[in-house]
Amino acid sequence: MTLPTYADVAAAAERIRGQVHRTPVLTSATLDAQLGAQVFFKCENLQKVGAFKARGATNAVLALDDATAVRGVVTHSSGNHGAALAYAARQRRIPAVVVMPDDAPRVKINAVQGYGAEIVLCPRPERDATAERIVLERGATMIHPFEHPHVIAGQGTAALELFAAVPDLDVILAPVGGGGLISGTALVARQVRSRCTVLGVEPDTVDDAARSIRDGVRYPGVKNPKTLADGLMTGLGEAAFAILRATEASVVTVAEGSLAGAARFFLERMKIVVEPSAATVLAALWAEPARFRGRRIGAILSGGNTDLAWLREA
Amino acid sequence: MTLPTYADVAAAAERIRGQVHRTPVLTSATLDAQLGAQVFFKCENLQKVGAFKARGATNAVLALDDATAVRGVVTHSSGNHGAALAYAARQRRIPAVVVMPDDAPRVKINAVQGYGAEIVLCPRPERDATAERIVLERGATMIHPFEHPHVIAGQGTAALELFAAVPDLDVILAPVGGGGLISGTALVARQVRSRCTVLGVEPDTVDDAARSIRDGVRYPGVKNPKTLADGLMTGLGEAAFAILRATEASVVTVAEGSLAGAARFFLERMKIVVEPSAATVLAALWAEPARFRGRRIGAILSGGNTDLAWLREA
Repeated sequence: MTLPTYADVAAAAERIRGQVHRTPVLTSATLDAQLGAQVFFKCENLQKVGAFKARGATNAVLALDDATAVRGVVTHSSGNHGAALAYAARQRRIPAVVVMPDDAPRVKINAVQGYGAEIVLCPRPERDATAERIVLERGATMIHPFEHPHVIAGQGTAALELFAAVPDLDVILAPVGGGGLISGTALVARQVRSRCTVLGVEPDTVDDAARSIRDGVRYPGVKNPKTLADGLMTGLGEAAFAILRATEASVVTVAEGSLAGAARFFLERMKIVVEPSAATVLAALWAEPARFRGRRIGAILSGGNTDLAWLREA
Repeated sequence: MTLPTYADVAAAAERIRGQVHRTPVLTSATLDAQLGAQVFFKCENLQKVGAFKARGATNAVLALDDATAVRGVVTHSSGNHGAALAYAARQRRIPAVVVMPDDAPRVKINAVQGYGAEIVLCPRPERDATAERIVLERGATMIHPFEHPHVIAGQGTAALELFAAVPDLDVILAPVGGGGLISGTALVARQVRSRCTVLGVEPDTVDDAARSIRDGVRYPGVKNPKTLADGLMTGLGEAAFAILRATEASVVTVAEGSLAGAARFFLERMKIVVEPSAATVLAALWAEPARFRGRRIGAILSGGNTDLAWLREA
């Protein structure tokens, strides 16, 4: 396994410039007054395809040499990474195949199809094997949603931009699913501001990353988790586990029941749509106000792809 | 009546710098592909107090000399301007009185109170007289929501920032209620890019501005209009009428029935909350695609203060 470094993140930033948005950093005077802190939200919900995943997928696709690229790319994520890879492939005018479970909701299939990817449906347990078969048959390149070093490096560019906008952060938070975003963030924080605390956040209903970091062993993901944070159901990846340990990053959990209210705050007070996965970072700030008082806090809002069904629960 | 000029907008920009947000400009590849055009949205829904009104109110409050300022400011808007004036006064640590009709919804009263203003309730027809009485009794300064030249000049700073970000616009659109935003916008467009078409937009349920500009006489506002665009119910002001005529700006109407769908597009595709008043600009683009094809279009999203009740209608 090759782990990406800070230099890979810097190279990714050069590579994807102009292909993805440099998203805005927003603040809320109301929240700052509540917390007695200063919070800077990096709005990846306003990114291409509505999530930070556009960064990693674009970096991975652009890093391919021409001969490899023409044979296309494959992945088996049914979520934001599937859409992001489809987007990135279309930008480079190469084929993309997204393997999806045959019970995937129609709306997700349509979203990926809308970006021009070929969809291959298969039974849920056969997704890995199906993707591997396509790699072999077509010579296409597998772009894993969070283990691929170019994907992790690409995700790190969000933190790079946030530090460029607000250099003197004391803490930086990001949600943790497979761990691509938080590990890319950790690589950046260690290099540009070593005293900045790096904090991954996951719901207590999918707490494998927190347990893995606490115990120093990578536990498998939680089976069939019940969470609003559909972007964070995946278990922590191998690469992310190694990077988080090497960079001494921490992972905290937040109460599942606090996600809808946090997502609602963004909608009502900050006038932006975030998916419940992204709202975890605000839930973490609310849960431990004493820990964050007086600090300058960066928080990455991972995405905005949601049907707003949680509005009824908040 | 003293009409503001471009120089007043430039002075306002200096005066309010750091007191209000320099809001982001967002784009949508989906929309651009739909229209065959390039649209740049200036996101005043992400402004302080959730609306461009923070600009004009802040400019008017900061322009007062100290001796005048300490006696406070007064207005009689129950909408975004009331909250904006309360915000601006609190920033300068001077008193603000907002006269509101005694049938105003509790949520609006709470919002203005939350920014620290004193609320004076009175019967709806007595609002002008009540505000005047407070001006006389306390020596406070009346800050009219759209006739005050410093307010209009402040609202123009949104367009100034938009042209700074995207200089070569062919068209610029903004919603029209009292007309402060569109007339400030027109002052800027005429100065910095004279060939840019300036287009005010209002719902066909409140079409007094369109009729007024068409016929060259200022008609009174529509009585008890039925519209989702609660920010645009006011009739076109005297100052705005004069400025729109002098700058040869146009006003178009959009179908009331198209507002909820347009507002929903921002929520679902662009991940931002806009109030139905702001969605008028997108409704205008959708209504006449041939008119806008191939153009570079600036559109000012006036605000994001909404309870999302229209989601059920879209």
